[in-house]
Amino acid sequence: MSSTLNPALDLEIVRVLRAPRALVWKAWSDPDHLKQWWCPKPWTTEVRAFDFRTGGAFHTFMRGPDGGESDNPGVFLEVTPMSRIVTTSSLGAGWRPQESWLPMTAFITMEDEGGSTRYTARVLHRDEASRKRHEEMGFYEGWGTCMSQLEAYAAAL
Amino acid sequence: MSSTLNPALDLEIVRVLRAPRALVWKAWSDPDHLKQWWCPKPWTTEVRAFDFRTGGAFHTFMRGPDGGESDNPGVFLEVTPMSRIVTTSSLGAGWRPQESWLPMTAFITMEDEGGSTRYTARVLHRDEASRKRHEEMGFYEGWGTCMSQLEAYAAAL
Repeated sequence: MSSTLNPALDLEIVRVLRAPRALVWKAWSDPDHLKQWWCPKPWTTEVRAFDFRTGGAFHTFMRGPDGGESDNPGVFLEVTPMSRIVTTSSLGAGWRPQESWLPMTAFITMEDEGGSTRYTARVLHRDEASRKRHEEMGFYEGWGTCMSQLEAYAAAL
Repeated sequence: MSSTLNPALDLEIVRVLRAPRALVWKAWSDPDHLKQWWCPKPWTTEVRAFDFRTGGAFHTFMRGPDGGESDNPGVFLEVTPMSRIVTTSSLGAGWRPQESWLPMTAFITMEDEGGSTRYTARVLHRDEASRKRHEEMGFYEGWGTCMSQLEAYAAAL
């Protein structure tokens, strides 16, 4: 399933990560790897569910040094090896509807770029207010930091 | 993607339809057929979107003889020919999150039963209140009537 960017509703970051696509995929596809780069440090990630297939649960729980917490249950809508991962917070395991504090669907795509990886994170929201709130929460800085962490982690695998 | 029934949250009807599976599938897979049996008559269905593939829009709009209306945009999560159709009202076209007056995910499965079709409609809700509301709206009667209409329509194709 491909998607089309709607600038009024969506947020996107495209970066070329200096790591081979096979290693970027590896860093994504194992929860023990994923938790190492998933959220901006010094926040930490606990992976509570990682059933890496279409309809499988994906649940991360993040903790900050000041006691802050962020609970993010969701589901995989698509897992295409080495190429595309789609997740949403609007459904839970087995595609059951659920309420989310931040309803979104994220399309992650990976393409070869020489020996590096063109990595795209496109996030779809249900309305302009949700997009605005996500941007104001620090979407670009937060997801950008995670991409840098992913790049460094994958390159060292 | 299979699902497991949770009696506290889900609603299900299983019926053997006296029509071959190929015709039941045919009655589902074309909007000109679908609109003939989709909602309990004398209500009528307008199919506003029917992009019959994973991630494709599925939008029905129903009208009653007394001026009542029911607007149901959603998306296909899975389309496996002759076997399984999954839709949700919690996402729209391209898997974009959306609010729904009735958040649900429906799993439709079709299996051979002699020359007939074992037809299962399993509907997942996000909480007990949603399930209860859906049942009180007349889930069993409404979906049951549609299944009878589907059976008669498919058998005559």
